Order: sequence, then structure tokens, then C-alpha cells
Amino acid sequence: MTHSDTDVFTYPVARIGIIGGGQLGRMMVKAAKRIGCTCVVLDPTPNSPAGQVSGHQIVGNYHDPAALRELVESCDVATFDIEDIDTDTLADLSRRGRRIFPCPELLADIQDKLRQKQVLTEAGIPNAPFVAADDPQAAQFEAFGYPLVQKARRGGYDGRGVQILRSATEFDRHLPVPSLLERFVPADKELAVMVARGQDGDVRSYPVVEMGFRPGENILDLLLAPARIPADVAEAAQRLAIDTVESLAGVGIFGVELFLTRDGQLLVNEVAPRTHNSGHYTIEACMTDQFEQHLRAITGLPLGATDLLMPAAMINLLGEPGYAGRPVIHGLRAALSIPGVSVHFYGKASTGAHRKMGHVTVLDPDIEQARAKAERVRDLIRITGEEKP
Amino acid sequence: MTHSDTDVFTYPVARIGIIGGGQLGRMMVKAAKRIGCTCVVLDPTPNSPAGQVSGHQIVGNYHDPAALRELVESCDVATFDIEDIDTDTLADLSRRGRRIFPCPELLADIQDKLRQKQVLTEAGIPNAPFVAADDPQAAQFEAFGYPLVQKARRGGYDGRGVQILRSATEFDRHLPVPSLLERFVPADKELAVMVARGQDGDVRSYPVVEMGFRPGENILDLLLAPARIPADVAEAAQRLAIDTVESLAGVGIFGVELFLTRDGQLLVNEVAPRTHNSGHYTIEACMTDQFEQHLRAITGLPLGATDLLMPAAMINLLGEPGYAGRPVIHGLRAALSIPGVSVHFYGKASTGAHRKMGHVTVLDPDIEQARAKAERVRDLIRITGEEKP
Repeated sequence: MTHSDTDVFTYPVARIGIIGGGQLGRMMVKAAKRIGCTCVVLDPTPNSPAGQVSGHQIVGNYHDPAALRELVESCDVATFDIEDIDTDTLADLSRRGRRIFPCPELLADIQDKLRQKQVLTEAGIPNAPFVAADDPQAAQFEAFGYPLVQKARRGGYDGRGVQILRSATEFDRHLPVPSLLERFVPADKELAVMVARGQDGDVRSYPVVEMGFRPGENILDLLLAPARIPADVAEAAQRLAIDTVESLAGVGIFGVELFLTRDGQLLVNEVAPRTHNSGHYTIEACMTDQFEQHLRAITGLPLGATDLLMPAAMINLLGEPGYAGRPVIHGLRAALSIPGVSVHFYGKASTGAHRKMGHVTVLDPDIEQARAKAERVRDLIRITGEEKP
Repeated sequence: MTHSDTDVFTYPVARIGIIGGGQLGRMMVKAAKRIGCTCVVLDPTPNSPAGQVSGHQIVGNYHDPAALRELVESCDVATFDIEDIDTDTLADLSRRGRRIFPCPELLADIQDKLRQKQVLTEAGIPNAPFVAADDPQAAQFEAFGYPLVQKARRGGYDGRGVQILRSATEFDRHLPVPSLLERFVPADKELAVMVARGQDGDVRSYPVVEMGFRPGENILDLLLAPARIPADVAEAAQRLAIDTVESLAGVGIFGVELFLTRDGQLLVNEVAPRTHNSGHYTIEACMTDQFEQHLRAITGLPLGATDLLMPAAMINLLGEPGYAGRPVIHGLRAALSIPGVSVHFYGKASTGAHRKMGHVTVLDPDIEQARAKAERVRDLIRITGEEKP
């Protein structure tokens, strides 16, 4: 680690602690080793995707104070690849001088979707109108007005914890948990911008990307970088994303999801205080990938250039419903025969319905070609399993 | 591994055995995991650069038949990141049906620089005139004529085993080992081309790059991609590199080093039957990097596109003479503040004089800017050590 503020590092450059050993942690470990850091991963599953490449994993739960303490105290700086972790222990460690980024208090604000929206609103960041609904009742839904989006305050991920209700007849599909109700926004496009902010306040925005979702599912289906929007809208979206991260005084990388409404307004949908599925394309397509950028930010190294080298499309590789056990990959050979296709598997030992098993990025000088190729890959690659559950 | 020739892989896609756990193996392991393979590394040093990321290392010598057998038999396909290994054992395993690429007989031909040149010459590949010198004697050197290059038949690497002798008065600097004598070629530029060839004979060439060496040292000092040469010369160099690899019927990736002579002739200098220092730039700058490309070739997957995304310059990070022990990195912060700079550290626990500790690739739309930035980084980053030997 560095000798004070001079530019001298005794190897390793930093020992990084990562809470969560999934695919985000795995890709972060690879970037960390590249820039001269070592990593320890905390994850309940032995030989987790990140643990497989870090060479050092603490097997433990994200909510176990002792495990969190062991991780944080064995490292120079700690971070996380998931949000559903115990922030009280982390906040306590942070107050006692341990370096944890983004800071646990900010993570606590973001974990709770109601507080997140309150914080953004107080900072003047435009977002869809909302009310708290701690004890969901039909009358309150009716009074707020349909169509609406009900979001569980905690634990949502990849579309879990979000319910779109079009009318009072759909109230029986509501989530019986403390929630917020949000005005349903007829969006022209869903956009996202990765923003990195350093400890010194330096801030960098990545290109604006366009996210497609399959009807009825909330897992990212097809991502296009850059988004097919006018230059002035892209500039406004980057500005809004930067304002959002600056208003939070966040350190690290953040995924800012935006709605571009039919009347041309930009609204912040959600902020992820971490590397993000919508930023995977940066590995191939940008000068500095989101994982290295995050590590540069949290270790106090200078941020890297975010220039797009070539347009890209990305799809997730999800486990096909109806299968479990050891993954079986169909169509890989056919997919790799398409020029510009890069596959990323996450090393998960077993598949499951809609489980994220990997992703594919396609580079092409023409974004429409990249999209078409990514759609072909989506049709070609199927992930089944050796078992039927 | 694949079910016969259908496009179905039960995870992992392939179990790869890598003989040699240095930086080339390390970067290969990262690519392997990305495309759904697992790796076992054979290296005598525990926790080798590649072993740190593979999660499975056999600690053993490259010349130990038992260790080689254990590695090869535990994998679907084996390869190597160094050339100085026991090819007899590997050839025996290959004859008994084990998949080893490039094939051990070809490696044996290439290991011996005299045989390598004989094979190339027989195939009609232009290279500098040479004679065998199994027992180096002043009279033979004199008869061959100065200036000449003496190359040890075996064991050369990074300039070791190569001696340039300008006149008879320098004969006392000759290498007292079985050698070949080669006509000294006044080269305008030293070029290199990475070429990948699949099991089905499909062949792909990367851009022609330009290699700079420091006077008196033979370790690659500054690499530029693409080479600053006329388009017709680049095309001819790519053609010659492809012809070379096709004449060897090699499977995998090959580094073909070329001289562009002052009178505009292209001569093959040497062939490396593996990923190569001159191909590191492909990680950031090309659609498919050399490591993934090699793995695609040896596992029978389709080769990837080799398009250059942006011009690049690369330098090696070498341990400064006079230091040993735990590496100390100077100037990293300053270097990373330059846009387009990517650093790669190899995770080596101790430094040494001229030891390859890492490399830096710089991307810039303007190759001269990339070169200038890389030269700045070369001046900024120094690697010393905690000990003085």
C-alpha cells in the first residue's frame, strides 16, 4: 500500500476486500490483480465466482458482523458487489477509521428505495412522483392513482420487489411489504449512465446506454452503447447522472438508471452504488472498464478515460427455466463464429431459472449491426442443466 | 467438454493444462475462465503468477516427465507459456491421443534455433543466411564473415543466447555452446505479427507491429501497433507471417518476428510457438486478444476477429537493476493520470534486475501520441525492491 501521499507503493498496491463473490466481484478481482492489488472475498458459497479468481475467500454471510469485521480488518480498503449487506457493522468500522467505499451510510440510504428517492428529491434530482406505503392498502393505492409502480423498500434485485399495477383490479398482485408507490412513467427509452467519482471529487461519466427488457421480466435483456438518442439528450443524461452522484458525494462507481419519457423529460429511476450490469460492455468497448475504474476511485488512484472505442451491444446469458445442476451450454461455437463476439462466463457450478450465468458483448462499428449480432447470439446460446428440478 | 462435434458443452467448456505459470500463463488463465474453461498450471514456483488466478497449480518442473504426465492427463487439452520444456514426454503423450497444441514435434523443431531455420528455409520462408556452428571456432566465424549474429541453438530468451559480433576482435565474446551463425541484417525496422491457426486450418493475422529495443539489450522496449510502414509492406508482412505458420501447420497462436531490411526485404527472424510479448497490446486494442485467440484455436472453437480498435503503444515494466525482494512501484499514480493508460502487473512476489514485472498499454487515436505517452510512462514508472542483493 502507498507510503502516505507519495507516489510509492510497496506491492501490493492495495489489499481490496470485496463483500459478495458473484460475477461483479469476479470481474473486479480480475481488474484488481491487473493493477497490482490483491483481493479477499466474503461470500457464503465456497468457491464463489469471485473466490475462484481471488485465491482468498472468507466463507461467511454478508449480514454476519464477525465475518464483515474479519474482511474489513484484513484489507486496506473494502467495497461490495451487492447491496443487501449489514451497513450497521460497516458504518461502525468506517467510523473507527476503516476505509469502505462507497461509504456505508450512503449504501444504507440507497438500500432503502424510499429513502433513496427522498434523498434524490431533496437534492433536486428529477424522479417520478412517489409516496410511502409502509402498510400497503387498496385505498391508498386508489388514492395515489393507477397505473402505478409498487416498489418494496428493501431487497429488490433484477426485477424482484417491483410490481407494475395498471388498475385497481390488479391490486391483488401487490407486494405485502413496506413499499413506495411511484407514478408509472410511460418511458420512450430506459437509459443508464455509469459515473465514477474519486475521493478527490474528480468525476467521470461513461457514454449513455440504452436498456431493453423483455416484456414481463425485469432483467436487462439487450443493452446498446451508445444509446440511439440525440446528442443533446445524451449530454443532458450524462449531466443528470453526474449531478446525481455528486449530490450523494459517492466515492466509487455508480450505475444511474434513467427514464426518457415520451415528452422528452429525463427522470432518475434508480441508483446502484456499485458496478452494474449496464456497464459490462465497458470491458471491451471503453478505454477503462467499470471494474478498474471503481478500484481506481476507492484506492485513491486517478480515474481513467471513459472513451468509447467502438459501439457495443450486450446480452445476459440466463439459465433456462426447467433446469438445474451443472450447466450445459448450447450454441457457443455458432455464437463465437460471429465477428466481434466476446463471451464471459461466471464460473457458476450450477444453473437455475433466469440465473445470470454469463454475458456476451458484441463490438461493431455500426450499432445496428452490433444489435443484430447480439440478437442472433441471444437466439443461439442456450444454457440448460444436467438436472431437472 | 464438448459432446462429440455437436455444439453442446457441459461446463467447463474445456479443462486447459498450462505448462509454465508466468505472465503469459496468467493472462491465458484469465481469458480461459472468461470463455468458460478451467485451468491447471504446472510451474516449479508455488503461487506462480498464473497459479494465483487459476486456483489449481501442480508444483513441478517443466522437464519432469511425471509432472508433465499428471498435468496433461488431468486436462482436455494442454498448452505451454514457455518453450524450454521436455518435448519427448509430451510427444509420447500426444502419440497416445492426448491433445497438446502446438504439437510437441513442432515445439521441438522451434526450440532448436538451427532446426527452426532449416525448417523455414526448406519451406521457402525467407530468412537471413546461416550456418551451423556446433563447436564454435574462430576460423569458422571468420570464414562465415563478420558482422554476424551468433545464436545458441537452445535456451535463448529475451536476448539471452544471442550475441552480435561485429568483427574478429569480438570473437572472445562468443557463446561457447552449440550455435548457428547468422548474417547480421541491417534492419530498417523490427516487425512482428501474431498469427492464429485453428485445428481446421482457419488462419487469422493480427496487425503488423513495430518493436523497439534499447541499445545493448534485447528485451522489447517499446511496441507500436500498427507499425508505421506503407500499407503494401504491412500486407506483405502479414502474408509472410501467415505463410510461415501455415508451413509449420501450427495450431494455436504464433509470434512471427520479422526484419524489414534497409533495401525493403522482409525476412523471418524467429517464430515463437505461443502467445508473445509483442501481442500484449491485443488485450486492449483488438477485438479478440491473443490469449483468448490461442485458447479458441487449441480447443477447436472458431477464431475471433483480429481488428484493431485503436492504435496502441506498449512498454514492459522491468525490475530496476540493484534491487531484489518485495517490489516497490514508483510513479504509478502519475502514469495512471495519463488518459488511455492501462497497467498490467504480473503478481510476482519479488523483483530482480530486468525481471518482467508487468507491462503498460496506451491507447490513443494517434499512434505518435500513443508512443509519446508510453515513453512518458516508461520514464515515470520505476520498479525497485525492498532488498539490495
